[in-house]
Amino acid sequence: MGRFTSYFPILAWGRTYSSAQLTDDGLAAIIVTIMLIPQSLAYALLAGLPAHIGLYASILPLVVYAIFGTSSALAVGPVAVISLMTAAAIGNLGLTDPTQLIVAAAVLAGLSGIILLVMGILRMGVLANFLSHPVVAGFITASGIVIALSQAKHILGVDASGHNIIQLLSLLWAERDAVHWPTIYIGLPALGFLFWIRAGLKPLLRAIGVSEWLAGLAVKLGPVVVIIVTILFTKMLHLDMQGVSIVGVIPQGLPGLTVPGLSVLDFDTELWIQLAGSAFLISIIGFVESVSVAQTLAAKKRERIFPDQELIGLGAANIASSLSGGYPVTGGFSRSVVNYDAGAATPAAGAFAAIGIALATLFLTPFLYYLPKASLAATIIVAVLSLVDLSVLKRSWVYSKADFTAVLLTLSGTLLIGVEIGVTLGVIASISLYLLKTARPHIAVVGQVGRTEHFRNVLRHQVRIWDNLLSVRVDQSLYFANARALEDFLTAHIAESKSVRHVVLQCSAINEIDASAIESLEAINEKLHSMNVSFHLSEVKGPVMDRLNRIAFTTHISGQVFLSHMDAVKALTADIPSHISVPKVEGASPRSYMK
Amino acid sequence: MGRFTSYFPILAWGRTYSSAQLTDDGLAAIIVTIMLIPQSLAYALLAGLPAHIGLYASILPLVVYAIFGTSSALAVGPVAVISLMTAAAIGNLGLTDPTQLIVAAAVLAGLSGIILLVMGILRMGVLANFLSHPVVAGFITASGIVIALSQAKHILGVDASGHNIIQLLSLLWAERDAVHWPTIYIGLPALGFLFWIRAGLKPLLRAIGVSEWLAGLAVKLGPVVVIIVTILFTKMLHLDMQGVSIVGVIPQGLPGLTVPGLSVLDFDTELWIQLAGSAFLISIIGFVESVSVAQTLAAKKRERIFPDQELIGLGAANIASSLSGGYPVTGGFSRSVVNYDAGAATPAAGAFAAIGIALATLFLTPFLYYLPKASLAATIIVAVLSLVDLSVLKRSWVYSKADFTAVLLTLSGTLLIGVEIGVTLGVIASISLYLLKTARPHIAVVGQVGRTEHFRNVLRHQVRIWDNLLSVRVDQSLYFANARALEDFLTAHIAESKSVRHVVLQCSAINEIDASAIESLEAINEKLHSMNVSFHLSEVKGPVMDRLNRIAFTTHISGQVFLSHMDAVKALTADIPSHISVPKVEGASPRSYMK
Repeated sequence: MGRFTSYFPILAWGRTYSSAQLTDDGLAAIIVTIMLIPQSLAYALLAGLPAHIGLYASILPLVVYAIFGTSSALAVGPVAVISLMTAAAIGNLGLTDPTQLIVAAAVLAGLSGIILLVMGILRMGVLANFLSHPVVAGFITASGIVIALSQAKHILGVDASGHNIIQLLSLLWAERDAVHWPTIYIGLPALGFLFWIRAGLKPLLRAIGVSEWLAGLAVKLGPVVVIIVTILFTKMLHLDMQGVSIVGVIPQGLPGLTVPGLSVLDFDTELWIQLAGSAFLISIIGFVESVSVAQTLAAKKRERIFPDQELIGLGAANIASSLSGGYPVTGGFSRSVVNYDAGAATPAAGAFAAIGIALATLFLTPFLYYLPKASLAATIIVAVLSLVDLSVLKRSWVYSKADFTAVLLTLSGTLLIGVEIGVTLGVIASISLYLLKTARPHIAVVGQVGRTEHFRNVLRHQVRIWDNLLSVRVDQSLYFANARALEDFLTAHIAESKSVRHVVLQCSAINEIDASAIESLEAINEKLHSMNVSFHLSEVKGPVMDRLNRIAFTTHISGQVFLSHMDAVKALTADIPSHISVPKVEGASPRSYMK
Repeated sequence: MGRFTSYFPILAWGRTYSSAQLTDDGLAAIIVTIMLIPQSLAYALLAGLPAHIGLYASILPLVVYAIFGTSSALAVGPVAVISLMTAAAIGNLGLTDPTQLIVAAAVLAGLSGIILLVMGILRMGVLANFLSHPVVAGFITASGIVIALSQAKHILGVDASGHNIIQLLSLLWAERDAVHWPTIYIGLPALGFLFWIRAGLKPLLRAIGVSEWLAGLAVKLGPVVVIIVTILFTKMLHLDMQGVSIVGVIPQGLPGLTVPGLSVLDFDTELWIQLAGSAFLISIIGFVESVSVAQTLAAKKRERIFPDQELIGLGAANIASSLSGGYPVTGGFSRSVVNYDAGAATPAAGAFAAIGIALATLFLTPFLYYLPKASLAATIIVAVLSLVDLSVLKRSWVYSKADFTAVLLTLSGTLLIGVEIGVTLGVIASISLYLLKTARPHIAVVGQVGRTEHFRNVLRHQVRIWDNLLSVRVDQSLYFANARALEDFLTAHIAESKSVRHVVLQCSAINEIDASAIESLEAINEKLHSMNVSFHLSEVKGPVMDRLNRIAFTTHISGQVFLSHMDAVKALTADIPSHISVPKVEGASPRSYMK
């Protein structure tokens, strides 16, 4: 694949597109369309936007992703977490006019699209790796809780907006006497029905002999049933007259193409700048979510997706969303799984689903007039509560305290302060903890195991040592953050054992030595020299040696470079009697004991 | 040493203090005092403060460091780089009243002292390691240039203040017709004389038979001669009447003890908050400078210093400086070397120097009235230009492009924007470059070398491989930033070679596997399983194995864990014919070729 055509995966699969694939893609598209309509409406509401914006975000982006994307199963569109982040980002602007909110959401999609596209062209998909698994897990769980709480107002028929659980709970508590009973009569049964569908419907259907596939599909279409039934109820009982909040008038017809935030004469630069930080976070989180889903589904078919090209696909999809009056989109988990299960063969399935939603936008909107917001809220609550998984706290506690800290900070930051602060805190914490870990490398004094050529830690093994020789192994590449640790270690050991005349650094675990570490090694060499001790290296890896040679390091250290550590010991301890070390197990931590 | 007494190193050396040590310390103190007086005055001027503040900062801090510090040779007081940073920090506040500037500088010292003290108590000296050598080198060189330019105004007798070379050069250029010739007649000869002393005096003295030590001392006392001569000239020729800027009236007597920024009724919280960021940077940079000097000098005597206790010593010294009307201090390079060369035996030498400066403050200040600022500026320029070393750019370019980038960013940021931005940019760049490097680990497919038990990269060596087996080695610990790289690598290789039934990951270079990497390994295991390929590990290190066992990882992967890679190959390739790989040297970068 050439560089240019690699930017258009459609050129590869489109050339061999068959009628069998067309049938598969068409069928998958019908199922996804039906599922996507209520979901799109609901998530737009979650983002603090009119419901129909969700439909707009589910048309052009899907077509564009089909051109640029590499996953055959990924279904792009509005998703829960990104909608929550959109709500937080545009909520922070202090806008009250709904039209301005719509423009801001479209600007956010445009910015996010540009960021993703640029990252894709610069092949910076690796950046997404810095969202560690604990951060993502903590963030998704906390977001699920915040989203569910934020939708409670629609079920209760009160006004309580907020971006963290403290705001939400206190506002809901303040409104406890103002709950609107007709709304609750719609919302609670809808919620109960949806929970029952998740938990009870599938076993029931299976028991009466319905196939696994069909039973799974029925569960996924539950929200559609709720939507239809509650629309009919509301219309027949005139519940809107009694104050039940409904979706209301949706502009009929397809969205026009515009550059958001662009008035006739001036471009709203300030708005774009204000939203840049949020757009960056939304881009990264959306990309991580989308790529994980795409990779999981691709592996099942033994296919590959290309993360850098996915950045381009998602970037183009968001720009398309922005231009067609939508808001930030990404590849969603639940709908991609539906798409995959329904047999989507190529990215064309997404484009066909877009046609379905366009038709719905053209002809179904009058029917959606009576849709109660409470039933949309119920579908969201049921969907997001399945994301909540507090067991990650326990699992990370068992596995590693550093990972636990990252989960805890992300989780509590997101719950108590907000999504953006939460995820930022988590990323900073996980990077800092990693850096601090590498800044304190495991350094061991080693001795010879029996008569073998193996050398092990003197603190844990009965090994042979020599009074005139200090053999040291560092279990980490040497770079600026840990360069001084070795200096401190050697200084401390030499100050204690005055008989030492040679220090040999066993470099078998050193994959890299940076300029700061070189300075530190030169300082060590000089210090040791002034103490009348020579400094040697052993088992230096090829690429590290190349680099040391570039600055002629090896010619000006006081000692030599030995191929193996055994060679060093043989050369430096001739005539010196050896003795056996006494392991001090009690001083060693269990972690390092095995090394 | 107990925990409590370890906080007071004076209790250790004070107990055995001898009259011989007293003589040594006393002599060193006299020499340091004489050298410290002009330096203190000059650096205070550089910090944008009245000259006598430099004297205040050289009394109590020295006494306090003698109690808490661990280095016998370190001389604490005002230094060039910290003075420049102080000028930038208090210059940003927009204060015009000199009294307010003095208070702000004292607050900065107080904050910096508290930060250092807290870091010391929490044993966070390791933080200083994140100032990599390239960042420090670039910063010091750029600071030297900025400082020299900032002092040019005193030599030229014009008004041109600024915090980067663009501001300074444009202001100096704008003032080019307003230069004050009488000032230049003082400044230029002083500058020329000082440069000559540095370059020409020592060889001359050595040639006429003066000892190395005495010749070196004479060079270091050059500034004192300049100060005395220019004071006499200015007084006799009444140059102050002709507009030559002089130090003027210095309050006679010792500074009183006060908490700065504390009015009778309200504490100036805002000022403390505004200065917190600057204080943090000053603390870290001051600590790094001081510890490097102290470690270098301690090594010469085969002594040790304790970085965490140094934090406490410097913290206490800065708090003392703050309370006694001074400004931020740290251990300076030039004066510590003088102290060491003059034979200082214990930290008491510093306390004795403090007595000398206190006496000077009491009795010498009337004599300093006529001291021209131009000659102080000349001493600064000569001192800081010796810090400028642009060769670090070339050296780091040769050694590593990542290190070069960090130097270049720090250097240009400091020169063109300012000290705080410069050093922050450098730290962020060096950490990011390191993380990006580890995020793209070296991963190799390996094969058996001849009939040995060694396995090497198939791209560079003629090694034995088997069609049903993919042997992979990762040269880095697995953590969140690189976990996905292995997943991508394996997916790509398996998609290409359909005959593979087993993947063995050789873990000899893996020192750590974090929670994200575990998730990734589990995903790999599942993906491979769905492709009908088993996933095995070999040569897992003890501590890594312990951790994997905590979550029973090894029991639910599809393959086994082998003690050595050879064992894995023997077990998995029975009856499968092997063939020899063809190395593809041209595709391999020279860096990885040797692995």
